[in-house]
Amino acid sequence: MRLVTYRRHVHEAARLGAIVDNQVIDLEYLGLSAGVDLPDNMLDFIDLGPGAVASTTELLNAHGGQWPIGVAQPIQNVKLLAPIPRPRKNIFGIGLNYVEHVEESSRSLDTSADLPKQPVIFSKPPTAVIGNGDAIEHNAKITQQMDWEVELAAIIGTRAKGVSEEDALSYVFGYSVMNDISARDNRRAGQWIYSKGQDTYAPFGPCIVTADEIPDPHNLNLWLKVNGEIKQQSNTKHMLFNVAVLVSDISAGITLEPGDIIATGTPSGVGAGRTPQEWMWPGDVVEACVEGIGTLRNPIVPV
Amino acid sequence: MRLVTYRRHVHEAARLGAIVDNQVIDLEYLGLSAGVDLPDNMLDFIDLGPGAVASTTELLNAHGGQWPIGVAQPIQNVKLLAPIPRPRKNIFGIGLNYVEHVEESSRSLDTSADLPKQPVIFSKPPTAVIGNGDAIEHNAKITQQMDWEVELAAIIGTRAKGVSEEDALSYVFGYSVMNDISARDNRRAGQWIYSKGQDTYAPFGPCIVTADEIPDPHNLNLWLKVNGEIKQQSNTKHMLFNVAVLVSDISAGITLEPGDIIATGTPSGVGAGRTPQEWMWPGDVVEACVEGIGTLRNPIVPV
Repeated sequence: MRLVTYRRHVHEAARLGAIVDNQVIDLEYLGLSAGVDLPDNMLDFIDLGPGAVASTTELLNAHGGQWPIGVAQPIQNVKLLAPIPRPRKNIFGIGLNYVEHVEESSRSLDTSADLPKQPVIFSKPPTAVIGNGDAIEHNAKITQQMDWEVELAAIIGTRAKGVSEEDALSYVFGYSVMNDISARDNRRAGQWIYSKGQDTYAPFGPCIVTADEIPDPHNLNLWLKVNGEIKQQSNTKHMLFNVAVLVSDISAGITLEPGDIIATGTPSGVGAGRTPQEWMWPGDVVEACVEGIGTLRNPIVPV
Repeated sequence: MRLVTYRRHVHEAARLGAIVDNQVIDLEYLGLSAGVDLPDNMLDFIDLGPGAVASTTELLNAHGGQWPIGVAQPIQNVKLLAPIPRPRKNIFGIGLNYVEHVEESSRSLDTSADLPKQPVIFSKPPTAVIGNGDAIEHNAKITQQMDWEVELAAIIGTRAKGVSEEDALSYVFGYSVMNDISARDNRRAGQWIYSKGQDTYAPFGPCIVTADEIPDPHNLNLWLKVNGEIKQQSNTKHMLFNVAVLVSDISAGITLEPGDIIATGTPSGVGAGRTPQEWMWPGDVVEACVEGIGTLRNPIVPV
């Protein structure tokens, strides 16, 4: 399934949907018409566990494109929000997880040229999340070095503590896209949360594709464009620490919970690593895409 | 008020109370007996805004120690939990915020000897929180360098974005104690969330003292003992960036929300800075105290 959080009208609450043939199918309403209890939001759906993905996929397939009245909306008629508009804890970000990005970072930022021996984990607060189409706020009082980073995001489905690498992928609910926005001039004694955690610095979406529909998360093309010009282009097979290693490693010390988000790191091509360096400014538009999931498109606006 | 989250029985849900004369006064039940709606948990109480602190203080004072049946419990008969058992986002920690600690860190860890020019912000996930008396888990597979850090914690009362230093303290609901447990051998490319964010690494409490009862948060003695031996002893007046600066600085980029926690940094005397270095091991007991708030006492246990 391609799951989304959507709103039909600016004054209505966000709801949970699945995209089928360019329509958003409301899962709670579909369930009601079929005598099945389904929730109206993504976190409650993830909490139902893996069985709900299979049974809801079946329910969608059973309709063969014939939807009860009020259940389907053309996708262009709704506003998509971040699939999880308010995560339950900080987002876990992974730094320096693609070889060429380790190299460019060591030239332009304050990181080592050696490949990390263990995943480099940082965090972004839940207040940083925005959805597809939402504005990334550029506060010129705070930064003149706003940078981009396209990343595959893994969404945890089941509470995970001390999970082995072998079992780790079974704890993943699905995958999405995150643009890990960074104010490179806001690192503080090397700590990244302020430079990466400001409001609007976590564009996320446009959907979550459930894990059953991503045969191999480690063979997905990903790219990023600024104002239509390609800046990053790689494949998730180049990750240093893959999704299974990341889930296992974090869960060794930190309990991962349903709906938790791991942004798995960015390939080379960030603005800080270019000669001359490039930054994003109000008026720019940034697009981040992972193959098979979708494209996040966000304008930069002044505040 | 000295507010606590408590449980009368292991099978009962956590509830909100105020400590008066060594008794825990249940605020929801007190409210019911007085015809006032009060919530049963700390976050909902903080959400009521500053007016609720004044009116609830009045309600407590009006009783003069005569409590309706079922409203008061001797404090030794209840289990205190962390005042906010599950924060809504990551805890904001402040590194290198006392001069002598900057010096000892530069000798023993990988930080600069220069005083930071801006607050050094990191985060701990909400899953790290434990209460007074709860066990700090020592996982020998992960760390052989478990360290202590007593800190004054400021609890946000009102949504804050772009707050001035002058106004910042009016956004603080109250104060508590946090022991910022760190696995010094778990820093990753200098990032601290894994070393400071593991489960049980954020002992927090025993209570929140509302801001009206802390005349000056910048003149409080604080100390920490391991197995009864004093390791840290200082005063919050030695902070480099005081609470007003921290709230203003973080809120410039990151929205602070009611119930958010800022752990304001630790003075010198941590284990990493000692010669020879000292670490905590299973069987040890650590006590962290801030004057006028209380003492957090936690045993280290193996997992």
